[in-house]
Amino acid sequence: MTVTLTIDCMGGDNGPSVTVPAAVNFVRLYPDAHLLLVGIETAIRAQLKKLKALDNPAFTIVPATEIVEMDDPVEVALRKKKDSSMRVALNRVKEGEAQACVSAGNTGALMAVSRYVLKTLPGIERPAIASALPNPAGYTTVLDLGANVDCEPHHLLQFAEMGHALVAALEGKERPTIGLLNIGEEVIKGNDTIKRAGELLRASTLNFRGNVEGNDIYKGTVDVIVCDGFVGNVALKTSEGLAQMLNGMIKEEFGRSWLTKLMALPALPVLMRFKKRVDHRRYNGAALLGLKGLVIKSHGSADAYAFEWAIKRGYDAVKNGVLERLARAMDENAGSLERAAGESGSRQSGGPLAGETPPGTASSSKA
Amino acid sequence: MTVTLTIDCMGGDNGPSVTVPAAVNFVRLYPDAHLLLVGIETAIRAQLKKLKALDNPAFTIVPATEIVEMDDPVEVALRKKKDSSMRVALNRVKEGEAQACVSAGNTGALMAVSRYVLKTLPGIERPAIASALPNPAGYTTVLDLGANVDCEPHHLLQFAEMGHALVAALEGKERPTIGLLNIGEEVIKGNDTIKRAGELLRASTLNFRGNVEGNDIYKGTVDVIVCDGFVGNVALKTSEGLAQMLNGMIKEEFGRSWLTKLMALPALPVLMRFKKRVDHRRYNGAALLGLKGLVIKSHGSADAYAFEWAIKRGYDAVKNGVLERLARAMDENAGSLERAAGESGSRQSGGPLAGETPPGTASSSKA
Repeated sequence: MTVTLTIDCMGGDNGPSVTVPAAVNFVRLYPDAHLLLVGIETAIRAQLKKLKALDNPAFTIVPATEIVEMDDPVEVALRKKKDSSMRVALNRVKEGEAQACVSAGNTGALMAVSRYVLKTLPGIERPAIASALPNPAGYTTVLDLGANVDCEPHHLLQFAEMGHALVAALEGKERPTIGLLNIGEEVIKGNDTIKRAGELLRASTLNFRGNVEGNDIYKGTVDVIVCDGFVGNVALKTSEGLAQMLNGMIKEEFGRSWLTKLMALPALPVLMRFKKRVDHRRYNGAALLGLKGLVIKSHGSADAYAFEWAIKRGYDAVKNGVLERLARAMDENAGSLERAAGESGSRQSGGPLAGETPPGTASSSKA
Repeated sequence: MTVTLTIDCMGGDNGPSVTVPAAVNFVRLYPDAHLLLVGIETAIRAQLKKLKALDNPAFTIVPATEIVEMDDPVEVALRKKKDSSMRVALNRVKEGEAQACVSAGNTGALMAVSRYVLKTLPGIERPAIASALPNPAGYTTVLDLGANVDCEPHHLLQFAEMGHALVAALEGKERPTIGLLNIGEEVIKGNDTIKRAGELLRASTLNFRGNVEGNDIYKGTVDVIVCDGFVGNVALKTSEGLAQMLNGMIKEEFGRSWLTKLMALPALPVLMRFKKRVDHRRYNGAALLGLKGLVIKSHGSADAYAFEWAIKRGYDAVKNGVLERLARAMDENAGSLERAAGESGSRQSGGPLAGETPPGTASSSKA
């Protein structure tokens, strides 16, 4: 089966000078991939020519005349730039000509245009951004990483359902374990939203393991960690900052003098191995989940190597039938998600305080 | 000037076997320190004897018959254990016999008992937990790290005032720079609370530099970063988890075979230097700010080296007159803080919402 992906070649800080070389390299490794390169035609052609890939049948150039800039407000991307590479790329997914879209464009715009073009899956109120972060044994999938700054309890339940389906599809795990990001393991910890989300998760059919803390992301305590987009984004960015600082400090220590440089030499192969293992570029490519189509968001500042990893994520998602799996999971859980939404909504506005009803009681009485 | 500190010797996962050796080592380095060792007398004596420090005049043993366990609920610590080492240690601060208290006891209990015993400074509704995290140029002070899971805009302003006073006192900076933790630099980013906190901060006399993101903690973009306790706690724990994982991976890479171990040998001095520099134990000791007394909270799992650093933080805070500086700053800003609180409260909704009562208030009125 050929996997067809659309590449928003103009997105990101560097546009075609990064996205096109990444695409060229990718199809070398994955000959069953066909890539629709979307954007300003002359710019894409110039890059392909430079890389002697102008005649490569793995590519089709799809012209788009506009570019969503990294600082464009959502409204501009949505209403003014109807022929942007981002929108055209997403349209191709919608029309079934491609199975996933990969873009390094600005997150807010990409999410908004994706929602507008593709629409959300039934049962999903809010799409979320999910990414796989490394742990000693593999990956921890964390969502939401920034699409939703204010979440209600049932949104967190929806994120958990989506994370479950994603990991089940990608990693072949039957019942991935789920954790709720909190500031302590005890049930009484956290704010009202978190406590009520915990109740919904405990009452669900998911393999819910209770509260987890920030350090559990990198311990690999559970397969999927759910949180609101504000918290998730802070955790992600904090990690990036710490990794960068540590990397800089290792360099600084070994670069202090000719002596320390000499000392580093024999250790270099091991240090490089370590560096490769923790290279954040290998974790580039977050999935926008909950849409009627697959969208992979690359870091805006990605280089070609990092962007190639984002394309790989899109490719893997298609190969593993992530979208079908997600749609089926939402369909199967439609009833309980709806109840949870009603529940969450009604309690939110009127009702007495959270935490008083035993888990599941309220939902089942309404069922 | 002698600096007198009370040490809650029974707090933490390891009690006197960690706290007493740390104390003994500390007074060796700081001969102008006098430590009141609070806890079960026999246990403290046994440790002192083992370390041949039973007659050291730098110590006074203060008996306390109870222990706040790490999993004791706040209510138990507050109402049942009135002769706990934690409470007795805090009482000595209140009575002016010591200038700061250092404890590795459980956070919730320590905060609640501190509030009850010491009371908050005028103008402060909610004390916060502040800690210094490393950046390439020094430290970034972050607060709140977990005392307040739901904050209103004016609480974040109060945190900023306290962070300002702390850094001004400890680092001698006239006008420390302040950042508001958010998920983007633009003013329009974040949830309502964050946006309104931004307005209050911009209107204040603080050296406010706008929104910062998670990675700015380790970049050192600003001196002080304010956030609610949920987000701050997740950022802190996530950092701990990542640092531990990276540390484990370095060990694993070099420990793979005799060859890699051999390769590591020449680099060992540099690796050790790096390790020392990023050793999280050196950042142990968070300040409970906003109380009428200085309280330093050590990590519960701290070893003696880490606990010594927490004692050092208490010592430094006393030497630099942190409490006086904080009290003065709150006093000078009383008017504007009050206006902000009124503003923030009225905009919030009117009605008494859940989470508006500061944690511990209800309990302390009953205690």
